[in-house]
Amino acid sequence: MNFAEKLRHNGQLVESKLEELLNDVNRTGAPERLVAAMRHGMLGGGKRLRPFLVIESAALFDVPSERTLACAVAVELVHGYSLIHDDLPAMDDDQLRRGKPTVWAAFDEWTAILAGDALQALAFQVLADTAISGNCDGLSAITLTRELAAASGAAGMVGGQAIDLESEKLSIPATPNVDHVTNLQAMKTGRLIRFSCEAGAVLAGHTGPERAALRQFGEHLGVAFQIADDLLDAEGDAERVGKAVAKDTEAGKATLVSLMGIDAAREALTRALNQAKAELKMFGKRAETLIAAAEFVASRDH
Amino acid sequence: MNFAEKLRHNGQLVESKLEELLNDVNRTGAPERLVAAMRHGMLGGGKRLRPFLVIESAALFDVPSERTLACAVAVELVHGYSLIHDDLPAMDDDQLRRGKPTVWAAFDEWTAILAGDALQALAFQVLADTAISGNCDGLSAITLTRELAAASGAAGMVGGQAIDLESEKLSIPATPNVDHVTNLQAMKTGRLIRFSCEAGAVLAGHTGPERAALRQFGEHLGVAFQIADDLLDAEGDAERVGKAVAKDTEAGKATLVSLMGIDAAREALTRALNQAKAELKMFGKRAETLIAAAEFVASRDH
Repeated sequence: MNFAEKLRHNGQLVESKLEELLNDVNRTGAPERLVAAMRHGMLGGGKRLRPFLVIESAALFDVPSERTLACAVAVELVHGYSLIHDDLPAMDDDQLRRGKPTVWAAFDEWTAILAGDALQALAFQVLADTAISGNCDGLSAITLTRELAAASGAAGMVGGQAIDLESEKLSIPATPNVDHVTNLQAMKTGRLIRFSCEAGAVLAGHTGPERAALRQFGEHLGVAFQIADDLLDAEGDAERVGKAVAKDTEAGKATLVSLMGIDAAREALTRALNQAKAELKMFGKRAETLIAAAEFVASRDH
Repeated sequence: MNFAEKLRHNGQLVESKLEELLNDVNRTGAPERLVAAMRHGMLGGGKRLRPFLVIESAALFDVPSERTLACAVAVELVHGYSLIHDDLPAMDDDQLRRGKPTVWAAFDEWTAILAGDALQALAFQVLADTAISGNCDGLSAITLTRELAAASGAAGMVGGQAIDLESEKLSIPATPNVDHVTNLQAMKTGRLIRFSCEAGAVLAGHTGPERAALRQFGEHLGVAFQIADDLLDAEGDAERVGKAVAKDTEAGKATLVSLMGIDAAREALTRALNQAKAELKMFGKRAETLIAAAEFVASRDH
């Protein structure tokens, strides 16, 4: 399979597993409307990049996808809940995502808040279940739970979103610089991407240089991802991107592109991509899928 | 120590541990304002009933409080995040809780949403950390993670809140009956109380009749708690209760009291209390603290 086929194949595995999980939730007595909102937010869209990184980083060590799928889905559930909450009127106030109405626009605000809350709980439930079902050893499951919570909490994804909104809504700091934007992006999107790459080593039971290399790979990949995202917002075509573009520019929001200019941002992107790839040297030819993933992240046009 | 002293003593342990955790979060790079909102929501208030149940159910088996505190705090973090979200304008629209402004009223809506999200992540992080630090064996930590996620997710606490709001805002069902209200209350508040009681047996490594008895105790205690809450709303004094009372009645919301009348509700409360106490027979005199807790829950006036 080439990269595009692998991305599609893994995406289908993730979609089926999410479908199965949400059906289970429905069967255990969750209200229909809440589950419908959870399905609306999670199914039928997205590149499933984070699960791809979990599955393919574990594949470096020959961990089969059946054993990594639960962790892959847990990361996607966390990512998905955060998008549902970020889209709320009190936060980014977005009505459109991936070409369809956001959860609050399709349902209402309270349903979107609760759907996000329930999806976060489901993420941790799924991770714990992998250990209970014997698909993952206990220590790995506990380590992944700890790291996923840290990557997504107040000092990770949620903290990054808070810094972003402080900047946008309260003008704190008054004049954001490159360091400020780099730090908030590392928290807001970088930490979960880094977690996804590192997870493969944890699932394989590696704690030494392999884990450190994948963690560093994820760190640089997160930077590349965010610069590419800023470039898309500045230059992208709304129809291809599937959501409003030039939003940041119109909101007067500081991004790496607005602070550095397009050319310098493109250079920083190339540098982050090369640093990411360099971290994979120890894995030789086995790492070609992750290298392709990094190139995809840096060059995507939607 | 008598019951009131134990409740105060455990409450202080929980408060110190929460304080320590939130200081740690601050040190790891979480933004000040977000941490301030998390502190506002979690510190300096509340009876800490759920942590008390975790600590005292584990004490039945002589598990010392140092080994149960993390789990106790994890439940309180989940309870606390849910209150912050429930108070939001899009949900219950409450400005006052425990005599002080709610988190969204003191900060703003987006900060309250993110503070809740971060507290939920922190709950699971704390549970995983107990196993990593060796304070809890891996299997117990994984079981508790799984059960806490299930108790608080779409088929538990969050699902119960969704059913409650569907009823209030969308009039679904058109005429709620006692079964409907009983089910939503069992999900919304009962599941977390039941988890707290069951957790003691899990922490002690008991999976047999001890765990089943504590689970049943928690089930009945949850019912008693909610009827007492409905009675407080119908009859309580706002100053003592520390939040708006007669809210349900004014909102025309169906409660067990409005559906059954005050006398029948009082009888149902006594029945639930007796059923709860009966489940503890196997523990003999050792269960007197939990019995006192059940009596406290049934008779509290704030």
